[in-house]
Amino acid sequence: MRAVDIIMKKRDGHELSRDELAFLVEGYVKGEIPEYQVSSWLMAVFFRGMTSREAADLTDLMLRSGAAMDLSGLTGPFVDKHSTGGVGDKVSLVLAPMVAARGAKVPMMSGRALGHTGGTLDKLESIPGYRTGLSNAEFRDFIKKDGFAMTGQTAEIVPADKKLYALRDVTATVESVPLITASILSKKVAEGADSLVFDVKCGPGAFMKTLPDARRLAESLVGTGTAMGKRVIACITDMSEPLGRMVGNFLEIEETLDCLEGKGPDDLMEVTYRLGAWMLVAAGIEKNLDAGLDACRAAIADGSALKLFLDNVRTQGGDVEKMLALRGNYRSKHSFEVKAPADGYVRRIDAWNIGLAGVHLGVGRNRTSDPVAPDVGFHFARKSGEKVRKGETVCTVWGKDDASLVAARELIESAFEFGSEAPAESSLVLEEIS
Amino acid sequence: MRAVDIIMKKRDGHELSRDELAFLVEGYVKGEIPEYQVSSWLMAVFFRGMTSREAADLTDLMLRSGAAMDLSGLTGPFVDKHSTGGVGDKVSLVLAPMVAARGAKVPMMSGRALGHTGGTLDKLESIPGYRTGLSNAEFRDFIKKDGFAMTGQTAEIVPADKKLYALRDVTATVESVPLITASILSKKVAEGADSLVFDVKCGPGAFMKTLPDARRLAESLVGTGTAMGKRVIACITDMSEPLGRMVGNFLEIEETLDCLEGKGPDDLMEVTYRLGAWMLVAAGIEKNLDAGLDACRAAIADGSALKLFLDNVRTQGGDVEKMLALRGNYRSKHSFEVKAPADGYVRRIDAWNIGLAGVHLGVGRNRTSDPVAPDVGFHFARKSGEKVRKGETVCTVWGKDDASLVAARELIESAFEFGSEAPAESSLVLEEIS
Repeated sequence: MRAVDIIMKKRDGHELSRDELAFLVEGYVKGEIPEYQVSSWLMAVFFRGMTSREAADLTDLMLRSGAAMDLSGLTGPFVDKHSTGGVGDKVSLVLAPMVAARGAKVPMMSGRALGHTGGTLDKLESIPGYRTGLSNAEFRDFIKKDGFAMTGQTAEIVPADKKLYALRDVTATVESVPLITASILSKKVAEGADSLVFDVKCGPGAFMKTLPDARRLAESLVGTGTAMGKRVIACITDMSEPLGRMVGNFLEIEETLDCLEGKGPDDLMEVTYRLGAWMLVAAGIEKNLDAGLDACRAAIADGSALKLFLDNVRTQGGDVEKMLALRGNYRSKHSFEVKAPADGYVRRIDAWNIGLAGVHLGVGRNRTSDPVAPDVGFHFARKSGEKVRKGETVCTVWGKDDASLVAARELIESAFEFGSEAPAESSLVLEEIS
Repeated sequence: MRAVDIIMKKRDGHELSRDELAFLVEGYVKGEIPEYQVSSWLMAVFFRGMTSREAADLTDLMLRSGAAMDLSGLTGPFVDKHSTGGVGDKVSLVLAPMVAARGAKVPMMSGRALGHTGGTLDKLESIPGYRTGLSNAEFRDFIKKDGFAMTGQTAEIVPADKKLYALRDVTATVESVPLITASILSKKVAEGADSLVFDVKCGPGAFMKTLPDARRLAESLVGTGTAMGKRVIACITDMSEPLGRMVGNFLEIEETLDCLEGKGPDDLMEVTYRLGAWMLVAAGIEKNLDAGLDACRAAIADGSALKLFLDNVRTQGGDVEKMLALRGNYRSKHSFEVKAPADGYVRRIDAWNIGLAGVHLGVGRNRTSDPVAPDVGFHFARKSGEKVRKGETVCTVWGKDDASLVAARELIESAFEFGSEAPAESSLVLEEIS
């Protein structure tokens, strides 16, 4: 078998066998197939795509390149949620304790902020003392104790994805549905979840800008995950505007507490309840969406989700008292406000611009090695559809220093659109695929 | 400027600027852009193509990666011909002295046999003493003396092409019209020719199997060469069947002598006269095709082309007397004959199979480092359209040893098609683009 023949076969639009994919992936991980052959194959995949069978084989081969998380000895059902990345997306932080409160076990491995999207690990680490680098044993113990745990990916989880993703990132081959599918699914399956719910973000603030693109990814995730024997549901949700009223690191922890106390903003709770309900259905805990929604609302209403969140903060080394003391005043002193230019309505807040502005402020980063700041970000006093009066504060912005505010200002101001008429109302949940 | 952004731009179907192409090509030659980025860009080019402007810029940038041949002090017009590679294609050997006899200067740099195609350098080196590794000074002096010279490419000529071609070869990105165009044209322009005639071979024995594919390459060569300020004409000629009656190394030198003595086979002379006529037109020596054809026929008829060929053999170190003494008897002792199975006609001799069989025999090679044999190959006593009688010898085959004959036999026998009816007659010159 020769790599060049396999590349040519894909280039010419043919389906690769599992053996051919194994030759490439295993050879690449072992250092036997050079990067220049893998990158030309990746570009051929970008143009030619993959069949469901190829995507499932690639996912499985990537999964087998490392060690899966060992959850033996724990009782399931194990269910996880994965978002393709948005702005203000703190859904995981509310969702995990919420569904854990209803009997699901959530082995959650999250990532860091990159580009315009925030990172769950960065948000959690803004809680004084909170540790996200758990050992395998800690992860198991903490799931057993609180029903969920939050950690970063260990080096043993899918090393093939780490190598392939790094190569895709510098060869313009990130945006390929089957490659995204294999990257996401291999990691999620390696975490040990039996059921998976995907939140495929769609719109200007998401990687998938259009509904057809989002649908292709959602279908690929469901099709490939199902082919691998998992129970998979995908929701396509709107990411035109940041989710909730807070974007930042500790700011999003504060909004998480609001949600768990039953005071979460409508848009954020709509998505959180929906995804949580599907998780309970996927895990076999609830029979249907309505029962799932009721269960999730109950977990918020009775305080059980909040209790589990606070338990988890303590379990993972966080200082609950300090966290609560910081609430409402953990803010950088470098800030400015966006004012309404006239009486009327907020018509739009562009999530992409806000996400990119967040990188300047210190919410996010351009390189994984860059630091982030805990006390920066946005508070949206008004969101689209809400009335404003001339001169009223619509948004407060906190940055790591004054230069960051200068750098972010134009992006932020251009993100807002005002008008005399309210925009049409629309649901955030656009489609569901299972 | 970042390589990944340039790759993405091409991937998404946009035209690259000269600066962007320079960033990639110059960076690659200097070792600053890694192969994995270049190979993913090459694959994106395979799928997206290039505009004429991009192809011209790429060609020019590749050209500038090395030193062009210095023909200063010589009087032109300088004109060259390039064939995309066929079987039995000894046209260059007849053409160069023929057009030199009519006042053109031909700075000819040729290649070696590879895969199913023969190599002009290998054929010339079958002449005892003939040297093809000329210095720049020798090349100039010999062109001045005989009107043409034949040499291999020096290391200084287009190093970017050497690096890029080696990478394309292992990343399944050879078959891209703009990349083929830039590779061919950069080398031909570096040789110093002002006018270029391309023989784009088309058919089973060529890289371009179909007329639309050949046309795309011919148009690209003409369009890009013209954009670079050269006078360029392309002929698309049929390569279904080997050209002439001889395929080999010294065997093709013998047929070259036949042609120069006015005894060349019709198919070979049709192509040679046509390409030679266009060279004289491109060089501005003759006004039109008919005048060019007359001039070429005259150069053969009056012996002036033959004289220049023999002069060149002596000039480049060859022993003319030994060459003439070997004529007709420089044959390997390992041989067999293909006989006609019945009375009727030869309907087809497949050039691809004959070319591949030639690799076994020692005419050609699979790797540039493999040796070739001078005294092996094919003599076609009958070609398609010619009558045969049962048991008559249609073809004699000489191989480097008996094993080579065994290895080649099936390919050779399957190359012949016989029938009771003559095949339809057709011209070898399929289209001309200027």
